[in-house]
Amino acid sequence: MSGYYAVIFSNTHTGEASADYERVAVRMVELASGQPGFLGIDSVRDPSGAGITVSYWESEEAIRAWKNESEHLLAQQRGRDQWYSSFDLRVARVEREYSFEVGQ
Amino acid sequence: MSGYYAVIFSNTHTGEASADYERVAVRMVELASGQPGFLGIDSVRDPSGAGITVSYWESEEAIRAWKNESEHLLAQQRGRDQWYSSFDLRVARVEREYSFEVGQ
Repeated sequence: MSGYYAVIFSNTHTGEASADYERVAVRMVELASGQPGFLGIDSVRDPSGAGITVSYWESEEAIRAWKNESEHLLAQQRGRDQWYSSFDLRVARVEREYSFEVGQ
Repeated sequence: MSGYYAVIFSNTHTGEASADYERVAVRMVELASGQPGFLGIDSVRDPSGAGITVSYWESEEAIRAWKNESEHLLAQQRGRDQWYSSFDLRVARVEREYSFEVGQ
């Protein structure tokens, strides 16, 4: 599959992840998963506070709609105000992919 | 900046990361950083063994050359044979980006 989009979100937390952050993060995955054009999400955070989340979408329109979803807008604001000391967000078009699984 | 490429490597380890794996992982970052067309790398692994590494490259040619680098080929083989239970590798073209830093 190709021709879909990845949103690559690399971030650093200001401190230890709070219970409040965790709750909102779980809710955002749940909310994103119900959006039109959502294809999937991978998210990893290491104990130092560095995180990478990559979400996959059918189209740029789907990404825009998700960006402007009202509950997500509030979470983005709290991210800038409280949770993240820095982040990079990139939108990229997937050209090709390859999967591997043991025993395949 | 846009028009460059991201290689998104999402993976799951077979077990606890070995010292051997860690040594090779550090060496691969060092080796990639010296390749023509290398722009940067972000890598995160959580304690459960899930990892995401995103490397950035000037061109598809640079990605191909790195894929075929001889020491990297050996590491890829060991990855499939020993270290990873599964992975997804995607090549994507970065269309746009946005950065945030506290105090900016």
